Amino acid sequence: MTDLPRVTVWNEYHEERRLPEVARHYPEGIHAVLRAGLLAHGMVQVRTATLEEPGHGLGEAVLEATDVLVWWGHRRHADVDDAVVARVQAAVLSGMGLVVLHSAHMSKIFRALMGTSCTLNWRHDGERERLWVVAPAHPIAAGIDRYFELEQEEMYGEPFGIPTPDEIVFMSWFQGGEVFRSGSTFSRGRGRIFYFQPGHETFPTYHHPLVQLVIANAVRWAAPGDAGRKGWKNAQVPPIEPIS
Amino acid sequence: MTDLPRVTVWNEYHEERRLPEVARHYPEGIHAVLRAGLLAHGMVQVRTATLEEPGHGLGEAVLEATDVLVWWGHRRHADVDDAVVARVQAAVLSGMGLVVLHSAHMSKIFRALMGTSCTLNWRHDGERERLWVVAPAHPIAAGIDRYFELEQEEMYGEPFGIPTPDEIVFMSWFQGGEVFRSGSTFSRGRGRIFYFQPGHETFPTYHHPLVQLVIANAVRWAAPGDAGRKGWKNAQVPPIEPIS
Amino acid sequence: MTDLPRVTVWNEYHEERRLPEVARHYPEGIHAVLRAGLLAHGMVQVRTATLEEPGHGLGEAVLEATDVLVWWGHRRHADVDDAVVARVQAAVLSGMGLVVLHSAHMSKIFRALMGTSCTLNWRHDGERERLWVVAPAHPIAAGIDRYFELEQEEMYGEPFGIPTPDEIVFMSWFQGGEVFRSGSTFSRGRGRIFYFQPGHETFPTYHHPLVQLVIANAVRWAAPGDAGRKGWKNAQVPPIEPIS
Amino acid sequence: MTDLPRVTVWNEYHEERRLPEVARHYPEGIHAVLRAGLLAHGMVQVRTATLEEPGHGLGEAVLEATDVLVWWGHRRHADVDDAVVARVQAAVLSGMGLVVLHSAHMSKIFRALMGTSCTLNWRHDGERERLWVVAPAHPIAAGIDRYFELEQEEMYGEPFGIPTPDEIVFMSWFQGGEVFRSGSTFSRGRGRIFYFQPGHETFPTYHHPLVQLVIANAVRWAAPGDAGRKGWKNAQVPPIEPIS
Repeated sequence: MTDLPRVTVWNEYHEERRLPEVARHYPEGIHAVLRAGLLAHGMVQVRTATLEEPGHGLGEAVLEATDVLVWWGHRRHADVDDAVVARVQAAVLSGMGLVVLHSAHMSKIFRALMGTSCTLNWRHDGERERLWVVAPAHPIAAGIDRYFELEQEEMYGEPFGIPTPDEIVFMSWFQGGEVFRSGSTFSRGRGRIFYFQPGHETFPTYHHPLVQLVIANAVRWAAPGDAGRKGWKNAQVPPIEPIS
Repeated sequence: MTDLPRVTVWNEYHEERRLPEVARHYPEGIHAVLRAGLLAHGMVQVRTATLEEPGHGLGEAVLEATDVLVWWGHRRHADVDDAVVARVQAAVLSGMGLVVLHSAHMSKIFRALMGTSCTLNWRHDGERERLWVVAPAHPIAAGIDRYFELEQEEMYGEPFGIPTPDEIVFMSWFQGGEVFRSGSTFSRGRGRIFYFQPGHETFPTYHHPLVQLVIANAVRWAAPGDAGRKGWKNAQVPPIEPIS
Repeated sequence: MTDLPRVTVWNEYHEERRLPEVARHYPEGIHAVLRAGLLAHGMVQVRTATLEEPGHGLGEAVLEATDVLVWWGHRRHADVDDAVVARVQAAVLSGMGLVVLHSAHMSKIFRALMGTSCTLNWRHDGERERLWVVAPAHPIAAGIDRYFELEQEEMYGEPFGIPTPDEIVFMSWFQGGEVFRSGSTFSRGRGRIFYFQPGHETFPTYHHPLVQLVIANAVRWAAPGDAGRKGWKNAQVPPIEPIS
Repeated sequence: MTDLPRVTVWNEYHEERRLPEVARHYPEGIHAVLRAGLLAHGMVQVRTATLEEPGHGLGEAVLEATDVLVWWGHRRHADVDDAVVARVQAAVLSGMGLVVLHSAHMSKIFRALMGTSCTLNWRHDGERERLWVVAPAHPIAAGIDRYFELEQEEMYGEPFGIPTPDEIVFMSWFQGGEVFRSGSTFSRGRGRIFYFQPGHETFPTYHHPLVQLVIANAVRWAAPGDAGRKGWKNAQVPPIEPIS
């Protein structure tokens, strides 16, 4: 299963339909490009879901058939239904992987799982970003050399209001003078979470082969292992046995 | 400020008024005994607040005048208003300390800050508990020898559905065969959080001098330092200065 | 490679040849039983090495052909050559996995990698131990229910002088009143390390099917991934490119 | 004690006596300037010790009278006696604080405590460095705004071969395109360790008021608390008491 995780790519799919500077990079939506990237990396079960579908396309059956959920949102975080957020959070805690992209740092689901503000500094000047590999042996960095560059990205800067990550895989340098923990992992319940910063909608970031590689690596890493997805079975219990 | 933090002890104050087996240990409420313990350890500003007060006694002005909030709840987690929970969470993220006691592992505020289920195993047989010091140099363990014992406590057992703690100060052994991370620290935003497991309402746990010592230590540790309490000032920013 | 890691089991192989109470469980040495357990779990390349072989059986060529090294020692830690320790440490930092068993908590290699005392409390009464799964979704716990028991083991108790582990997979309860972080993971350089407490030589612990399962799981987990084993290439560097 | 820790500043004191470009900034040695900075921040017991003193100036009596040791070295790491390193390591594990500066990332004592390579990338072009505060509430960042700058420093870049720090207080941006975890904390045994990157000997870094402030903050933070300095008392133990 780890090699062929069942993936659902979620996107609010808003600005692509309204703004030409977004539509030119993502005419069929960011989710379509993310899906194509995963297919190109050998995954075969990659569905998509968007905000305006019933239940945002994330009904119980979809979540049960999803090993890893990829999430992109920006303008319409507030329109995501709290009941769907609770359902997704429960799925993550029971083992579904979650890959959180770019402006989804402020999504309800990421903030619910982190418990913190998740705020950061930013500047939308389209400057150069270098992503340095801090954890060279991490599977999410497989195939990436010491660093890679994006010619134009939105600057996201520290302090980033997250709990201390389990591991920092990438740290970014921005031309304008900032640094950022741009690729970080978290474990919550049985679920694995990866936050990855690149992906502002006015740039062609998700067409970049190394960005696609990192996201494919992250999906494989976040997929539940052989232990599969099980709920916590905590409950009131008898003493296991008398102590002799 | 660290030496004399301003403390608010919050209690749902429910079973003490209904159940004789609780009232005999806490005739004026668990909060009264917790407050007395903190006063006995030299603190001078210790107020209390309870569920049935307006706004649960946790209005904006109270939180602003609180360096550390101590929280006990059990039966009525669901009756705590979500707006109050959001206010307390914001206060913690901006630097207020939080000491979470016993069954408050399932309180809305603790779960909101952790992002996880916070469930555990339990058995209410009143068996012996030994709390081992795992981090002997931690200030919360100051004055505690290698371990201390409670003759009767409710068993709380692993797995405990929390994110990996920053530090485990105490790990507990239960006579019936379980283990538990019974004293754990977490940092969230600018705030410090300590979860401490002892304190079932049918036992006189909060009268125990070492339990009182640990809670007093925890309050001092969780108080914001000289940096004080400030909000995250993250915002859209100009490039700091041109790069020469 | 992850599924079929090349394993070397190292054992000081001392008491098995001297003490009948050890020899009856391990007539051909602890390493022979550990090797048999790994073979039974489907691994095919499992060699052994012992203290009295030249270079302790851990020459450069052996280490280069080893994905995961399993280490057992007790009485003769001091007899392990410092040059071999340095070689093994370098191999771990470049990606070789290391599984450290029982009394090897005081081995030179474990202490060199931890940087701490690695001391603990102990009592050799052969009492009952229960190992609780604290991280149910961790691959090292795959196939283990909520806990498992050993009828007789040496008690190892907190405080254990190690750095905070990345993850605690198992925590143990001992009949005599102690608790212990009995299964813990650490990352050092590119290498993954698992410490596992069971295995006193006078008990048949390594014949226990669940102990064998945990060790096989740990070997798979500790094997280097697709990124393989590479040295840190840090060095004096020119500016990567002029900043435009 | 925390407010007035007894400090020993150790320096190899080599290049200041040989190279004019170092001597002009540190005519009496780097240790003299570090000491003056600590005195200016209100500390009163600040001694110094250097490589060529007997026992490198770090005899047992000195270590026992030291709450926090500050360490600077570069060219002569190899000349530090292993017995002294072992003594310092034991002192840290029993509670002495350690502040490791700049090129001391490769000192024997830091590498012994970390267990890893401690290597990094570097470039000695004297470019601009910005140190960002990642943990705004950490006492080591007290008095520092969102960031501060050094006009000229040696670039140190990721990947840095250290275990995952407990907390990252500062992350640095370098003009030439790199990032670095420039201020990180570690707990080892009872001791607290802070690594701080600035301080190349050909620049006047340790005269900078904010660098002096950070080092003073770090010394206060690393000082042992009320629990004081005690050895681990781990030993073979009887069962604490019979279980009834």
